[in-house]
Amino acid sequence: MSEFRQNPVTKQWILLAPVRAKRPEDFRTHSVMHGMPEEDPECVFCPINDAKNTELLRLPDNKNWEIRVIQNKFEALEHTKIYRHRDFYNSRSGYGNHEVIITRKHNEPVALQSIATVELTLGLFRDRIKELYQDPSITYVQVFHNHGRDAGASIIHPHHQLIATPIIPPHIHSEILNTYHHYDINKQCIYCDIMKEELEHRDRIVYESEEFVVLSPYAPRKPFEMWIIPKKHKARFEDISASQLKHLSFVLKVTLGQLYTKLSDPPLNFYIHTMPAVRDVHTKHEEAAYHWHLIVFPRLTIWAGFEYATGIPINPMPPEDAAKFLRE
Amino acid sequence: MSEFRQNPVTKQWILLAPVRAKRPEDFRTHSVMHGMPEEDPECVFCPINDAKNTELLRLPDNKNWEIRVIQNKFEALEHTKIYRHRDFYNSRSGYGNHEVIITRKHNEPVALQSIATVELTLGLFRDRIKELYQDPSITYVQVFHNHGRDAGASIIHPHHQLIATPIIPPHIHSEILNTYHHYDINKQCIYCDIMKEELEHRDRIVYESEEFVVLSPYAPRKPFEMWIIPKKHKARFEDISASQLKHLSFVLKVTLGQLYTKLSDPPLNFYIHTMPAVRDVHTKHEEAAYHWHLIVFPRLTIWAGFEYATGIPINPMPPEDAAKFLRE
Repeated sequence: MSEFRQNPVTKQWILLAPVRAKRPEDFRTHSVMHGMPEEDPECVFCPINDAKNTELLRLPDNKNWEIRVIQNKFEALEHTKIYRHRDFYNSRSGYGNHEVIITRKHNEPVALQSIATVELTLGLFRDRIKELYQDPSITYVQVFHNHGRDAGASIIHPHHQLIATPIIPPHIHSEILNTYHHYDINKQCIYCDIMKEELEHRDRIVYESEEFVVLSPYAPRKPFEMWIIPKKHKARFEDISASQLKHLSFVLKVTLGQLYTKLSDPPLNFYIHTMPAVRDVHTKHEEAAYHWHLIVFPRLTIWAGFEYATGIPINPMPPEDAAKFLRE
Repeated sequence: MSEFRQNPVTKQWILLAPVRAKRPEDFRTHSVMHGMPEEDPECVFCPINDAKNTELLRLPDNKNWEIRVIQNKFEALEHTKIYRHRDFYNSRSGYGNHEVIITRKHNEPVALQSIATVELTLGLFRDRIKELYQDPSITYVQVFHNHGRDAGASIIHPHHQLIATPIIPPHIHSEILNTYHHYDINKQCIYCDIMKEELEHRDRIVYESEEFVVLSPYAPRKPFEMWIIPKKHKARFEDISASQLKHLSFVLKVTLGQLYTKLSDPPLNFYIHTMPAVRDVHTKHEEAAYHWHLIVFPRLTIWAGFEYATGIPINPMPPEDAAKFLRE
């Protein structure tokens, strides 16, 4: 039984998911994620073990599938819906979905996959978000990718994850408030303004194509953080056109390929920020202010006590230097 | 030249500290923090290398020092003060202090130190905060400890750090807003209310002494997170009495000792949250609402793409089970 819990002081929500828990003893340092294989013939995500997972769909729909979607066996969210309220603390049941999108080859990271495979993946992101937003209890769908142990991946076989939640996550909530605030004053989307500023100075531009800009953000939280932003204003990733999807697949592969080559396959996450499901009349105004984007987040430094205490990440790498290094 | 930079979308501040930077090539995975020694005769923090650092003070003040304070050689903040403003982005120079507090023995983590040494340490935290708050440009002083590579420690020799900043860090800012909001409605400090609630149910209490409560918080961000809270309401750690300091040293050592024994010396951070410097008339009202505390933050799980994308930590360990395990 998992549940969301709110810290009454900071208002931060956490997702408590004991179904994923080991016993306390199992957290001893040596046993955390030890023995993660480079290539594992017993891998539960490999085609030979198809039957071991609850499959939602596969493409193509036969034994030669290139990509498939399964339910996460150790899902952080569940399908029971129980709202709880205690007198002092604030809690909600962990209703939602947790799916895994698996590409076929065990040892082929996204950076080395074909553009066609990346396009299949991004197309599934779009389709699953649309589908899950049909559930009136789902408010937000977060798609993300973990690559390497230091980026939180517990299974080495390349895969993506999708978590659908009944709450608007705090980072999305504050982004929407802040983009709306900017729009209200400037009558202009802040991401459109950022792209205009960056394309003028170009010192933080990593890559530019007809449809997308890849940049090192002005205030990156970690070395080599990058934002991939569509040039045309659009609030929702799931409204992406077939042609933009092709462009994005190419741009994402190029971006991950640069990191793979120049930083020797670093651990990283990437994830998409899009709008929450349409649930009220205000959404249309927010769509004029919000602009979907994809964030690439390499994990080459470890946050220490200062970052967790203050909320201020210390980053030793100026984004101008990172962009120059990746551009050349 | 380091500087604070604000993300124009999320409003999150980062501290850009290029003086700590390697060249981009040096971030290749293999070279990050590699070769950290278990015991290093060449350690720059060991007594034999006294002269290699800019010392601020030592106790006792002779060659047999038990503890000393030095300037961080790779400090994240500097003593030049330049305010910068650009048309589009928001930036401040990284004015501040970055000090290191070193205990004598190379291979003695805090969990194994004598209570007298822990008391010397906490006394220095108090004295340094008071001293640094005299600087009108310093608004907040964060003291923290990193233990182990997975907790962000780059030097194994036990040490503490102290970063004095010209801005109120976002976590402190929101804590003050939220505690004040609670106080305004309830005429009562929220930490006092939490202790009352927890001492009644006791399922998340790890340890209780005459002066302090150690608990697993209701919504912990990581497994085995613990809060050490003084029973008597007090906004500022730096106002701690000599007798409370003795009590706290004992309680901190016991708490870290439990983790050391039961989880085989896990990587961890600990840090103190106290009030910002007195800068205006509102501070007195906030002091009725705010309550200093010490947070112990073990690093046994790694945040993945979901946590960084949403701001919602996924924690597999219920605090009730963690508290039970540590209590027994």
